Amino acid sequence: MPHSSLQTIILQLQEFWAAHGCLIGQPYYTQVGAGTMNPATFLRVLGPEPWNVGYVEPSIRPDDGRYGENPNRFQQHTQFQVILKPDPGNPVELYIQSLEAIGFDPRQHDIRLVEDNWEQPAISAWGLGWEIWLDGQEITQFTYFQQVGGQSLDPVSVEITYGLERILIALNNAAAIWDETWGAGITYGEVRRHDEFEQSKYYFDTADVTRVRQMYELYKTEADACLAQGLVVPAFDYVLKCSHTFNILDARGAIGVTERQAFFGQMRERARRVAETWLEQRQEQEYPLLKENQESQVKDRVVSSESPSTFSLKPAGFVLEIGVEELPASDLDSAIGQLKVNVPGLLEELHLEHGDVKVFGTPRRLAVIVDSLAPRQPDRADIVKGPSADRAFGPDGVPTPAAIGFARSKGVQPKDLEVREMDGGRYAVALVKQAGRPTYPVLVESLPGLLAGIKFDKSMRWLPASRFEGNGEVVFSRPIRWLVALLGETVIPFEYAGLTGGRTTRGLRPYNSPEIDISAADKYLKIIQKNGIVLDVEERKNLIEAAGRELAASVKGQLVIPPELLREVANLVEKPTSFLGNFEHDFLSLPKDVLVSVMKKHQRYFPVELLAAEDNEASMGVGRSTLLPHFVAVRNGDSHGLDLVKQGNEHVVRARFADANFFVGEDLKHKLEDFLPRLGTLMFQKKLGSMLDKNERIEKLTKALVPMLHLEADEAVFARRAAHLLKADLVSKMVIEMTSLQGIMGREYARRDGEAPAVAEAIGEQYQPVPKTRPGLAVALADRLDSLAGLFAAGLAPTGTKDPFGLRRAAIGIVQPLIEHEIDFNLSAALETAAALEPVPVTNQVQSLVVEFITGRLRVVLMELGFKYDVVDAVLGAQRENPAGAVRAVRQLTAWVARPDWSTILPGYARCVRITRDQENKFKVDRNAFIEPAEKQLFSALEKAEKRKRAPGSVDDFLEVFVPLIPAINEFFDKVLVMTEDMSVQENRLGLLQRISSLADGIADFGKLEGF
Amino acid sequence: MPHSSLQTIILQLQEFWAAHGCLIGQPYYTQVGAGTMNPATFLRVLGPEPWNVGYVEPSIRPDDGRYGENPNRFQQHTQFQVILKPDPGNPVELYIQSLEAIGFDPRQHDIRLVEDNWEQPAISAWGLGWEIWLDGQEITQFTYFQQVGGQSLDPVSVEITYGLERILIALNNAAAIWDETWGAGITYGEVRRHDEFEQSKYYFDTADVTRVRQMYELYKTEADACLAQGLVVPAFDYVLKCSHTFNILDARGAIGVTERQAFFGQMRERARRVAETWLEQRQEQEYPLLKENQESQVKDRVVSSESPSTFSLKPAGFVLEIGVEELPASDLDSAIGQLKVNVPGLLEELHLEHGDVKVFGTPRRLAVIVDSLAPRQPDRADIVKGPSADRAFGPDGVPTPAAIGFARSKGVQPKDLEVREMDGGRYAVALVKQAGRPTYPVLVESLPGLLAGIKFDKSMRWLPASRFEGNGEVVFSRPIRWLVALLGETVIPFEYAGLTGGRTTRGLRPYNSPEIDISAADKYLKIIQKNGIVLDVEERKNLIEAAGRELAASVKGQLVIPPELLREVANLVEKPTSFLGNFEHDFLSLPKDVLVSVMKKHQRYFPVELLAAEDNEASMGVGRSTLLPHFVAVRNGDSHGLDLVKQGNEHVVRARFADANFFVGEDLKHKLEDFLPRLGTLMFQKKLGSMLDKNERIEKLTKALVPMLHLEADEAVFARRAAHLLKADLVSKMVIEMTSLQGIMGREYARRDGEAPAVAEAIGEQYQPVPKTRPGLAVALADRLDSLAGLFAAGLAPTGTKDPFGLRRAAIGIVQPLIEHEIDFNLSAALETAAALEPVPVTNQVQSLVVEFITGRLRVVLMELGFKYDVVDAVLGAQRENPAGAVRAVRQLTAWVARPDWSTILPGYARCVRITRDQENKFKVDRNAFIEPAEKQLFSALEKAEKRKRAPGSVDDFLEVFVPLIPAINEFFDKVLVMTEDMSVQENRLGLLQRISSLADGIADFGKLEGF
Repeated sequence: MPHSSLQTIILQLQEFWAAHGCLIGQPYYTQVGAGTMNPATFLRVLGPEPWNVGYVEPSIRPDDGRYGENPNRFQQHTQFQVILKPDPGNPVELYIQSLEAIGFDPRQHDIRLVEDNWEQPAISAWGLGWEIWLDGQEITQFTYFQQVGGQSLDPVSVEITYGLERILIALNNAAAIWDETWGAGITYGEVRRHDEFEQSKYYFDTADVTRVRQMYELYKTEADACLAQGLVVPAFDYVLKCSHTFNILDARGAIGVTERQAFFGQMRERARRVAETWLEQRQEQEYPLLKENQESQVKDRVVSSESPSTFSLKPAGFVLEIGVEELPASDLDSAIGQLKVNVPGLLEELHLEHGDVKVFGTPRRLAVIVDSLAPRQPDRADIVKGPSADRAFGPDGVPTPAAIGFARSKGVQPKDLEVREMDGGRYAVALVKQAGRPTYPVLVESLPGLLAGIKFDKSMRWLPASRFEGNGEVVFSRPIRWLVALLGETVIPFEYAGLTGGRTTRGLRPYNSPEIDISAADKYLKIIQKNGIVLDVEERKNLIEAAGRELAASVKGQLVIPPELLREVANLVEKPTSFLGNFEHDFLSLPKDVLVSVMKKHQRYFPVELLAAEDNEASMGVGRSTLLPHFVAVRNGDSHGLDLVKQGNEHVVRARFADANFFVGEDLKHKLEDFLPRLGTLMFQKKLGSMLDKNERIEKLTKALVPMLHLEADEAVFARRAAHLLKADLVSKMVIEMTSLQGIMGREYARRDGEAPAVAEAIGEQYQPVPKTRPGLAVALADRLDSLAGLFAAGLAPTGTKDPFGLRRAAIGIVQPLIEHEIDFNLSAALETAAALEPVPVTNQVQSLVVEFITGRLRVVLMELGFKYDVVDAVLGAQRENPAGAVRAVRQLTAWVARPDWSTILPGYARCVRITRDQENKFKVDRNAFIEPAEKQLFSALEKAEKRKRAPGSVDDFLEVFVPLIPAINEFFDKVLVMTEDMSVQENRLGLLQRISSLADGIADFGKLEGF
Repeated sequence: MPHSSLQTIILQLQEFWAAHGCLIGQPYYTQVGAGTMNPATFLRVLGPEPWNVGYVEPSIRPDDGRYGENPNRFQQHTQFQVILKPDPGNPVELYIQSLEAIGFDPRQHDIRLVEDNWEQPAISAWGLGWEIWLDGQEITQFTYFQQVGGQSLDPVSVEITYGLERILIALNNAAAIWDETWGAGITYGEVRRHDEFEQSKYYFDTADVTRVRQMYELYKTEADACLAQGLVVPAFDYVLKCSHTFNILDARGAIGVTERQAFFGQMRERARRVAETWLEQRQEQEYPLLKENQESQVKDRVVSSESPSTFSLKPAGFVLEIGVEELPASDLDSAIGQLKVNVPGLLEELHLEHGDVKVFGTPRRLAVIVDSLAPRQPDRADIVKGPSADRAFGPDGVPTPAAIGFARSKGVQPKDLEVREMDGGRYAVALVKQAGRPTYPVLVESLPGLLAGIKFDKSMRWLPASRFEGNGEVVFSRPIRWLVALLGETVIPFEYAGLTGGRTTRGLRPYNSPEIDISAADKYLKIIQKNGIVLDVEERKNLIEAAGRELAASVKGQLVIPPELLREVANLVEKPTSFLGNFEHDFLSLPKDVLVSVMKKHQRYFPVELLAAEDNEASMGVGRSTLLPHFVAVRNGDSHGLDLVKQGNEHVVRARFADANFFVGEDLKHKLEDFLPRLGTLMFQKKLGSMLDKNERIEKLTKALVPMLHLEADEAVFARRAAHLLKADLVSKMVIEMTSLQGIMGREYARRDGEAPAVAEAIGEQYQPVPKTRPGLAVALADRLDSLAGLFAAGLAPTGTKDPFGLRRAAIGIVQPLIEHEIDFNLSAALETAAALEPVPVTNQVQSLVVEFITGRLRVVLMELGFKYDVVDAVLGAQRENPAGAVRAVRQLTAWVARPDWSTILPGYARCVRITRDQENKFKVDRNAFIEPAEKQLFSALEKAEKRKRAPGSVDDFLEVFVPLIPAINEFFDKVLVMTEDMSVQENRLGLLQRISSLADGIADFGKLEGF
């Protein structure tokens, strides 16, 4: 084992990157959260000029302060930042070489590229790439920048951000940073630990919110003044200072959710102007660094130009391998799915016969294997329709000029035109014969389209646009780095993304990605397998699961295997090797949710629980103490150095648990109720006040909802208490750290405070789409109604695809639970109550808009349940205020519509409605004014029907009342002329029909049904 | 020639210092003016813990911005900072090795250590050391820190601050930084030049003074909040931010002279509290870095312990060489002077006979050479007085116990006591024989005292106090690094400052300071000479002057040789080699004062002027165009690589002139008058307003002074115009840059604006102790009177030794010119006028205090002119308001006092005064009431005398009138009884004498004369 020091690592990285053509820069002179903020990155990645730089950046993140108590989390950590612009073509390999330069043996460790879509809203920047994990620890952020300062980047820059403390810990196999050497025999702790303590104290406890806000404002204004003078760097300095002061305010818990947006908006806007102005300046200066040949940095791969002199005459196996940098797990699934459809489609389109098509994939390769691909297309004759026969041939049968022109355009002789009957007429047609072409050139031409056709949710650019002028940009999930394409033994040298199809693939990363030649397509699978790569995701899943179960059994536990986690993990490796890791038993006193969240979400570990535990995945979020102090993790590669990998992973999870322990410990110094006042410092929305204000509104609204939701007395007590404590955990340290634990921590802390279990449960359920308990339902509804009423009134309703406050989710969160709990409810009434509590006026018009909005979601929910749109619309036309009732009605109506006799029922009702629906007046029925027996009979049937007892909104009840009327209705329309000239008679008859129609009031608007 | 890059230099320095046991740190995350401000220096140099660190520090000095136009001056420059704590004993040698590590060959360059007493008031720090010059360019600041944050340092830290841009320029022999490589083929200019432009624009033109002031205030308050919580580093961060915002305000010209003091006071106070708190914390933490043996870092020199078995019996030469790091020029002079006195004194005290004593010195050694030093002291017998004879011996002559005790204490037998007459009595005495000791041990014992006895204006510590417990600290001008002490061939191994006398000296720095053994004292001079060292300053001066004259003649010019510059230059080298440097002719268009200032003051070059020029040194400040574009500089070492040295020096002076050119060019864009409004932004003193306010007061006061100074009409016009423009140049860029050019630049710009020559001259003279012209006198007096009146009224009168506003100088600047111009004046009247113009009330009492204060200075001036105190006091007792008159009077009175008949004159007057001075009333004389002839006669003589015409204040006139009265006065006192019982007669006689006494009114208070 090497034993290194921080300064040695820095010196080595500086030398490595200097030797690889990087300028070595210096940390920036104002506090930044990351090396990205340094103008050497932020400004220089803009525009066309090449730029390669490396520098240290001590990065300040007030939020991450741990008073020097966490082994590897601190408000200041040391980054080494590298920018490679343009992409040199092999940045991941360069990066791994740099790890070797500082002393890592890749064979001894598990180096993984885990999807990470980086974005930094304060500077309007985003990119795609990975966290790079070393033995489970994120040691580097690796990103292909796509946009910075709101500007699309071309060329794209590769950003490599090393976390030096974590690297040092890993390199020295240490438990914490503090005792590791900085340099000159002095430890990191001796240099920085007390500083960490003081800065944490400053950021969390001492910083004066008012003064820091004033600083922010001054910086903002000064940035504007600089921008007005076109001074880019001074302006940017102040944007950075804004960002740092914002971070201080955030650490102080002084920034509310919506206020945060405003801050980001201000910073983003200024960052954008800085970037724009910089770009203008560089253009004026004619891009001083844009020297000759900068494009040649993307080296074209030299391929053996095996251009076959003859093409095989026999069907042969075909293999296509798209070699990529590590694909995100879901993108890998998606690409495999697309290829499974697109490859057969393409072959069919190309008229190429073939045997089985198989598609496999690992994070680093997509493989298509086609059996027995035909050596060439068959010859074909296509009939092409020309002018009509009489226009094509003279009376003498001689082709007219129109026919001659057509023939020529199709490459046939006019005399060869034939006449055929087609499309209901007679036409001149040309028989265009097409000789089948060899498969080789056909594939060379068509494979680029196959690759271009693969689409991802998020795609990235990595090549300079200038390389593809006129051909459109190449985008993919992650960069494509090699292409294998073999038909039998023959290379198909198609070109894509600056690469050419060849026969050389790459082996496993832990083996240093050796180049491997594939001799022939049908050897592919064997060669890949021989090189340790498990190509099939199902096989990888099986391997992981089997090994995991065995490992869990070895400690008398059972593995918790959430399927989506298994799939993800299987998609993160090419060769899975599972191992068992342990952590200190003490950590089991942490809430189970916290432990599981950390293991699953952060680390992609499988938890291990007691054999006896009846918990299943669904209940993992509840309770604790069924866990064992073990986890199963999966490493990419073989078992070489597995002990080290295990130790590394254990270190990471220990640090994470220690961190959680810190937060929970801090939080438990107070009762949950004691957190409430601090909610006052957390802004919900400027016009709507703080989270404390919101919490108080929720409390009142919950009280009002109790009767509307028909809660029992004890439920009402629980609901009110839960509402009182509802948002308190938002200012707990654990939730500030891991927002996903909101509610969950509230539940946990409420329990530990001795609150009633139902109260804790209700708090815990508030963010769930459908709370299970009725107190939980009450508080969740109150929360969501408050948000909708308030934010709509504040002018913040969703627009287009923008829904920054998640109001669509809130609306669904109202209808779904009401449906599942089958509670009848009146949305308008509830909303009116909520509206009255808001600090801003919520007009009737706004209330209607909100109801409309919720109904819109209800419609979506119903559609997603599989109901027909017309049925849904019919019901919602009459009972949209009560989601539970609406579902009942839709379900019933659906059954009716499916009945064979529906075609007789609906018309019966429709007749009554159609003839009356344009009447403006509601006519009174005078039983004595009926003349015809048919109308008398109908009226008496109606009266009987009207007396029948019906459940409100019940379609069944309505139709069971209505169906018996149908014979009378039909008789009525057969015998009686409604629109007689005697107006009083006419109106009496219309009145009768109106009363029949209105039997459906509050049930459905049957007029919206198909066939009405 | 090596061709290096910035990043290579940085990497090399990091490696060099890492290899020499330094921790490698990082730049600080907030803007600092220097690496010293980084806590890795500021905090870590405090207290006893060892600390060795090296780091880059991009240092921000807004003031130094040049819009990217100067070749080596920028608002941001790159320092490499090294701290060595404690002093390793050879830091200068380590430093020179580091220069070799980055590619310098010391033989090819002129590396010089030029005194620099560093201080940084914002952090209450100071130290002694040098600028290190490479070919005339300051490339490094080298300091032994003595105090930081107001705390005395123990151990002392060595601070080495490399200026990397200048080093790169020198290393590449470049003309400017811009085209030199930063790294990766990219130039420094490409990385930073546009940034320089923008930041300069921001700092000089854009930064909003109000906002930046607000930032300063917020930082200050936040620093206090942190200190209140004991958070040292966060507090210090804000102190640094204060410092940076202060620097911005300063660059904007928004900070007045007195306001500056207030800012510094605030920052200093907080820096001090930071330092104190840090020290307390470290003590509480028990000094974690204080590991064993840290003291052993000061390595004791191993000396050959030649302890002679026998001592020479013959007189032998003696040499003492004190080897030091480069002494400041004036300290070198002072040490030589002291040794010239102290060495003979010591030898006498030691009773050592000797021949000639010679003392020589160079910056690196002080040498004492004694001819024929006796091998041992002579034997001596001292007579020691004991008890009186009658107490010592009984009547029987037997020694009493007292005598026995005395004898024993002196080491003699009681029987050997003798009785002697001495001191007017008879005493028992002991004859104490003292055998002469060999010179060797005597010198071992006494040489430490000789060294300790050398005192300097500023002394430094460099050794940890713990090494000298109980023995007091070792201090010296600069560290002592070796000691040579030889008596004949014998080493005198005395110990001092951790060193032991030996025979090994060191050669020239350019030759890498080789160790050289001195075989015997009488070989010393020859060996030193042979090694190229010119030991005698007079010889060095002669060499420099002769070579310089020759070089000047070679370009048909003559050398300007200010004697003090010659002496200084001669004291900066051990082996002077002069060379001629050139600069662009264009620069001669700059004001001559500027050129000369730069050459003499900054660069220690000798200007070269036209052969014909009649200018002498005194007139160098006036006019221009007599200079030639050459200079003579002196290098330490031989002529090896002299071309490179010359080029380097030329580069430096070119950059300096370019800088001056920049300032003057910027200034000349405006008329001098146009600067006036900006004086409003320059605070003079809070209560007294801006410099613009002051200038306006001066203008009014000048107008009022015109008649009081009896100016001619044209002089009055010039004075008023000069007053109008008087302070305008204070806001010119050139003066902001080089304060010493204040007034001089005003004169220059006034001339260029076409103002009358007398106006320009008056502006130029305002800061001279005695302006030559009368308009100059008028404005200078107005300025000084205004300062005195205003600042006294504002409660800022000097106290004790504190005189921050230079009011003593101002007062002298009032009396001296009035004396030299011999202008009669009324201080009180002038002050009353000045007082009326002040914005604060200047009470009569305050005015009296000011007059008192000015008179105090006048007394000092008169004393320094050599007049006797009693004469001065006598005159000032009567005419202190008019300095010119007072001097005349003193001069006359002095002549009278020197007259042989003075002893008859003074008593005559004294008799009249003495008898009347206690009378409270002034009696009226009634000529008819006289009775005796003697009194009648005296009265008539008096009446005649009173009628004589006398010049005001003239002592001569008074005495010439008075002396004739003396016979009558004597007759009067002989014949007349003044104090007769008849009160009316008595009062008439007293009245007569009172009238005689008052003849001296306004002349002098003769009562203050000796012999009165």
